[in-house]
Amino acid sequence: MGKYCFGVDLGGTTVKIGLFDTEGTVLDKWEIPTRKEDSGSKILPDIAQAVLGKIAERQIAKEDVTGVGIGVPGPVDDNGVVHMAVNLGWGIINVNEVLGGLLQLPVRAGNDANVAALGEMWCGGGKGCSDMVLATLGTGVGGGIIVNGKMVTGATGAGGEIGHIHIKDDEPDACGCGGHGCLEQYASATGIARLANRKLAATTQDSVLRAAKERGAVSALACAIAEEFGDYLGKGLAAIACVVNPEVIVLGGGVSKAGEILCEYVAKYYKKYVFHGCSNAQFKLATLGNDAGIYGAAKLVLE
Amino acid sequence: MGKYCFGVDLGGTTVKIGLFDTEGTVLDKWEIPTRKEDSGSKILPDIAQAVLGKIAERQIAKEDVTGVGIGVPGPVDDNGVVHMAVNLGWGIINVNEVLGGLLQLPVRAGNDANVAALGEMWCGGGKGCSDMVLATLGTGVGGGIIVNGKMVTGATGAGGEIGHIHIKDDEPDACGCGGHGCLEQYASATGIARLANRKLAATTQDSVLRAAKERGAVSALACAIAEEFGDYLGKGLAAIACVVNPEVIVLGGGVSKAGEILCEYVAKYYKKYVFHGCSNAQFKLATLGNDAGIYGAAKLVLE
Repeated sequence: MGKYCFGVDLGGTTVKIGLFDTEGTVLDKWEIPTRKEDSGSKILPDIAQAVLGKIAERQIAKEDVTGVGIGVPGPVDDNGVVHMAVNLGWGIINVNEVLGGLLQLPVRAGNDANVAALGEMWCGGGKGCSDMVLATLGTGVGGGIIVNGKMVTGATGAGGEIGHIHIKDDEPDACGCGGHGCLEQYASATGIARLANRKLAATTQDSVLRAAKERGAVSALACAIAEEFGDYLGKGLAAIACVVNPEVIVLGGGVSKAGEILCEYVAKYYKKYVFHGCSNAQFKLATLGNDAGIYGAAKLVLE
Repeated sequence: MGKYCFGVDLGGTTVKIGLFDTEGTVLDKWEIPTRKEDSGSKILPDIAQAVLGKIAERQIAKEDVTGVGIGVPGPVDDNGVVHMAVNLGWGIINVNEVLGGLLQLPVRAGNDANVAALGEMWCGGGKGCSDMVLATLGTGVGGGIIVNGKMVTGATGAGGEIGHIHIKDDEPDACGCGGHGCLEQYASATGIARLANRKLAATTQDSVLRAAKERGAVSALACAIAEEFGDYLGKGLAAIACVVNPEVIVLGGGVSKAGEILCEYVAKYYKKYVFHGCSNAQFKLATLGNDAGIYGAAKLVLE
């Protein structure tokens, strides 16, 4: 195994690239734009040029590079085949082969959410654990499942799509996926705003005005929203735990900026719903932020 | 690798043992009683004697035996340590070491439900697949998850405890685990009987009597129960699919004797609740019956 590896996080707007040693130290990181024109055909050549440029710039011997891992925003199977990455304009493409051919280095691709989970396990909130769940609470709810130190890709690359666990019957609004009552509809940033709007609408006009004046009432409303959010997410994570029995559950994404109190609200309801054999799972905050993707991608090629 | 292996299914009353070739053909199978006295201390010596006796009887060279796998009714970690198997009177015991020491052969232990899933993947309803969920619908609901061809044990051996996924709020009755609203309360044989009793109780005395006379009404009631059962189980399996994205979902246990119609009822609701990326999972019936445990145990030592 070489001394270095690259981790690439391919997003719809920018590509983040990191140069790592095999212990998980990031030695360099930078970004290039994602050029989506011509059905995204320039993306992989751009990445190859960036990586080869860095190898030349740092005068690294190519045999000292173990390989290049890459997280892609779409389903990726175990052979590195991406089946439709709409954000990139891609159809079906074997990233391992195409990028590997351009670089003449081993390449391994994975779904970006799953790859981020691998990063948090390697160097972030799940460090030292080999059975982990990452729940990324952003605009939507994404996730990644690690079993025995490896990402769960699933049969068609849809492993870890935890945002679409059906968590509530009788939900009138539709989720982005077309379903009704998905976890994402309550536990994402958007979902929390929806919960808040519903609570406000259910409150009389009079009490809303009063609430705006009385700090206590506002605080009570905020707490009620947090409890409801915690109930939905705790219930969803409890279901996941009955499947894979994680040692640690890592909470990431924009919502996790709320800090440790988030873990408290979620853990309370997790313990209410979970099977006793899985109740010892620890709740941790993600620590790598937007870098989780490059860490996880780098780790992909070290496996 | 040797030509033979043994699979042991350790139950609370009997121990089933199978001699297999490494292709999955069972060459011999038999049972011995489970002697639970003295805190179950006779169980592993009895098994060792039975296996060594068979090796001698068949004049098999010991170096032709790859090893002995064993399914145990309790949580088993990746090192073969059983943490309390109440049915056997066991506390904490390292089965790999103790049975391996007695046999002077490699031994690998796993939880019985997880091991049964491995068996169905190797030679049963999930043959040819490497991402599989087994739901065993008996007195309770057990399960086993296979990811990339391997059992998901989890951090504390509670992987695949799918019977305790919380599936319904406002359930007044308690599950055996102490929870309320577990999948097992609706999708096990006992759970189906409960659903039926509730429906009957909700019917007026008059209409019950009428139903008993009119075959059509009885049939309508049975269909309503089957739909409700399918809804709960389909919802639970859809949640599992969002985590591990299986290629096939195998239904086993006593309830699966209903046949293919069971798959139809469950698949209908599965498709209603599941994320579209996971909707292609196939539903199959388990085919190994009570032998799934010995098949899976044998497969454990071939990995």
